[in-house]
Amino acid sequence: MDVAEFRRRGKEMVDYVADYMETIEQRQVYPDVEPGYLRHLIPTEAPLEPETYEDVIKDVERVIMPGITHWHSPYFYAYFPAATSFPAMLADMLCGAIGCIGFSWAASPACTELETVMLDWLGKMLQLPDDFLAGTHGHGGGVIQSTASEATLMSLLAARCKAVRLVQASDPQSSEADIMSKLVAYTSDQLCATLGTTPSCAFDHITELGPMCNAEKIWMHIDAAYAGSAFICPEFRPLLNGIEFADSFNLNPHKWLLVNFDCSTMWVKKRSDIIGAFKMDPLYLTHENQESGLVTDYRHWQIPLGRRFRSLKMWFVFRMYGLKGLQAHIRKQVGLAKEFESLVRADKRFEICAEVIMGLVCFRLKGSNELNEALLKKINHGRRIHLVPCQLSGRFVLRFAVCARTTESHHIQEAWRHITQLTFELLQEPAH
Amino acid sequence: MDVAEFRRRGKEMVDYVADYMETIEQRQVYPDVEPGYLRHLIPTEAPLEPETYEDVIKDVERVIMPGITHWHSPYFYAYFPAATSFPAMLADMLCGAIGCIGFSWAASPACTELETVMLDWLGKMLQLPDDFLAGTHGHGGGVIQSTASEATLMSLLAARCKAVRLVQASDPQSSEADIMSKLVAYTSDQLCATLGTTPSCAFDHITELGPMCNAEKIWMHIDAAYAGSAFICPEFRPLLNGIEFADSFNLNPHKWLLVNFDCSTMWVKKRSDIIGAFKMDPLYLTHENQESGLVTDYRHWQIPLGRRFRSLKMWFVFRMYGLKGLQAHIRKQVGLAKEFESLVRADKRFEICAEVIMGLVCFRLKGSNELNEALLKKINHGRRIHLVPCQLSGRFVLRFAVCARTTESHHIQEAWRHITQLTFELLQEPAH
Repeated sequence: MDVAEFRRRGKEMVDYVADYMETIEQRQVYPDVEPGYLRHLIPTEAPLEPETYEDVIKDVERVIMPGITHWHSPYFYAYFPAATSFPAMLADMLCGAIGCIGFSWAASPACTELETVMLDWLGKMLQLPDDFLAGTHGHGGGVIQSTASEATLMSLLAARCKAVRLVQASDPQSSEADIMSKLVAYTSDQLCATLGTTPSCAFDHITELGPMCNAEKIWMHIDAAYAGSAFICPEFRPLLNGIEFADSFNLNPHKWLLVNFDCSTMWVKKRSDIIGAFKMDPLYLTHENQESGLVTDYRHWQIPLGRRFRSLKMWFVFRMYGLKGLQAHIRKQVGLAKEFESLVRADKRFEICAEVIMGLVCFRLKGSNELNEALLKKINHGRRIHLVPCQLSGRFVLRFAVCARTTESHHIQEAWRHITQLTFELLQEPAH
Repeated sequence: MDVAEFRRRGKEMVDYVADYMETIEQRQVYPDVEPGYLRHLIPTEAPLEPETYEDVIKDVERVIMPGITHWHSPYFYAYFPAATSFPAMLADMLCGAIGCIGFSWAASPACTELETVMLDWLGKMLQLPDDFLAGTHGHGGGVIQSTASEATLMSLLAARCKAVRLVQASDPQSSEADIMSKLVAYTSDQLCATLGTTPSCAFDHITELGPMCNAEKIWMHIDAAYAGSAFICPEFRPLLNGIEFADSFNLNPHKWLLVNFDCSTMWVKKRSDIIGAFKMDPLYLTHENQESGLVTDYRHWQIPLGRRFRSLKMWFVFRMYGLKGLQAHIRKQVGLAKEFESLVRADKRFEICAEVIMGLVCFRLKGSNELNEALLKKINHGRRIHLVPCQLSGRFVLRFAVCARTTESHHIQEAWRHITQLTFELLQEPAH
């Protein structure tokens, strides 16, 4: 494909993407396929000779779309949202074209520098303590990880490295393996200190945990993967109080801040803690500026060596929405969850199972776990909307997460009508 | 931005990307900026009110491009290539639009299934032993990791888990910490068994290492991040002989197989080894089909939970190039490296420092390390081309890696003329 054909095909793809987003409601949110469906639709080997773009693109509707769970459909209420927005998609196109691998400052200075400044921008929107910002002279700062799992792993490894060094400083004879066998990681049953858990969006009391961690020299990492985006709204910011006790913190703009996956932002109070644990300097990655102390080489902050220019997405989204636009998005989705909560509460057959603080409603039919499992099965087999369950204190609970950017009040009303209709049918069945 | 504006802006962005690729030679390959340049060009905080797309896009040339190292310029000969192609960019646009997070089969069946089949396609192109293919009844199979670092880490963790279980089976009293303190990982000074090291593209003898590993029940992981792509050509495939002894293997199509970053493909002989080490099944991620034994849930194969629909890029690229097109790309770049090697060999002032097998030429001026450091400095300060060094047996060596897809013979000739001109100038200077 030469550049002239790319111009043509690229524009066709823009229209395909726009059409997909514009008509996504007409697609069935959850697919009908059985495991192994795809292997039989395509050849067992790659072609020897090139195929045309027409050959490929016509297979998107034949092979791919029948097997897609449409995360951006306003009938998708499963898991947590996967963020998307048009500015982020445009930035991603630019990111792909530049195609730099930003493992060091020199590998593309703009890639590193925009990231540092975007993490400061977002840190300020969240009113993080200044300790977490890079600024021009700070000791802290932020980095984009791929996922919250990686951010948490990095914190754990940095904490372990720091603890080992602390023990070795007072007892130089002790071996690393010996020290490690005695280290303890304290977690809740959801892992580390969490603001907004996945099953029920529950919040730990970090103002209580924090001072204890600090007194005992325990590294405190706070994971606010989903809920963290909401802290840009002053009314939700108090949930982040206690952040001043933390050593590291992460949230996923790719969940709820309109920046496409992947973009998990992580801040540390002391850059040296994280860099100290992972520094890696072969000659082919050194550059003249690194000894100046003025540059950040993000390869020391993460497991992978390579990294994409992901801060472009943040820059496009933050500017084209503005803080007010981002706040409006969060508030709208919380409002829709509250609307759904009201509908559930008004129906005496149902109960709400966890306080509704963000965009997630945990609810169930009053009755057995089996009854609720049957209801969820009926809902998901109906293919009209898509939900997943969770377990809260041994009870089988349905999770209704407001996900798609384009979800409106009428979708919520329609989803509830559908759920009550299926409930009516379920309760008519002899077994119940 | 509504969908109508996205249609317009998306097409403008396609043209911007096409223009960028078409005229990239006219941009200076390595930027002139000093550390901290970007912070002063943009506000210290995100805007409160939305800005227009025009505001943002005009800043791409003002703020971003002056700080870009242009990896896809035919004057870029640093590190290793970062793959790019138009089909991969189109697939990435589609991937962004679908925007599913494929942590389980149910989260988007097509995302998981296409990945399994694409890894089989590539495995067959590489003539991997059948053990490494998933097929319909295989015990092995492949997965896309973000980077070779993650593939290597996963192998290490799976190997550790397997070794601990093996010891515990014969000695149930031993603690995990105790066993771990005695485990040994054997590596060369480049890490694990490597086919195509980063400094000099050297190859380990895996036909010698493999039988020893198997006899001693040592997990053998082979990293062929860069060179692995070349094994799709029959003339290079013998370098992979011995793969039958390995437990796991990875290469990066995002380096040399025209699939944009990130796409690091990894195969294992026994899926159960890797899944056993990482299985993670909260209720909100379970689905009806997972107990059937027919589905793959890739979250068990990797550190992150979330994952993009990256196999679309492989599918588009493999089909639109065909195996012959991909082989032609590899052969062309190896040919260009050989052409550069001949130019170096014809100049008695220079020496070749490592056998040229793939697209990398390691060379230096006969003389001191200081002289070669001075030459590299002169080359990179000249900004005409961009190289990085490496260290081979204590000697400072210049690496010339054929990187950009659009590099042609005349670029190689021009680069060499430029290097010899700078060498002439350098040798005229009194210090030398």
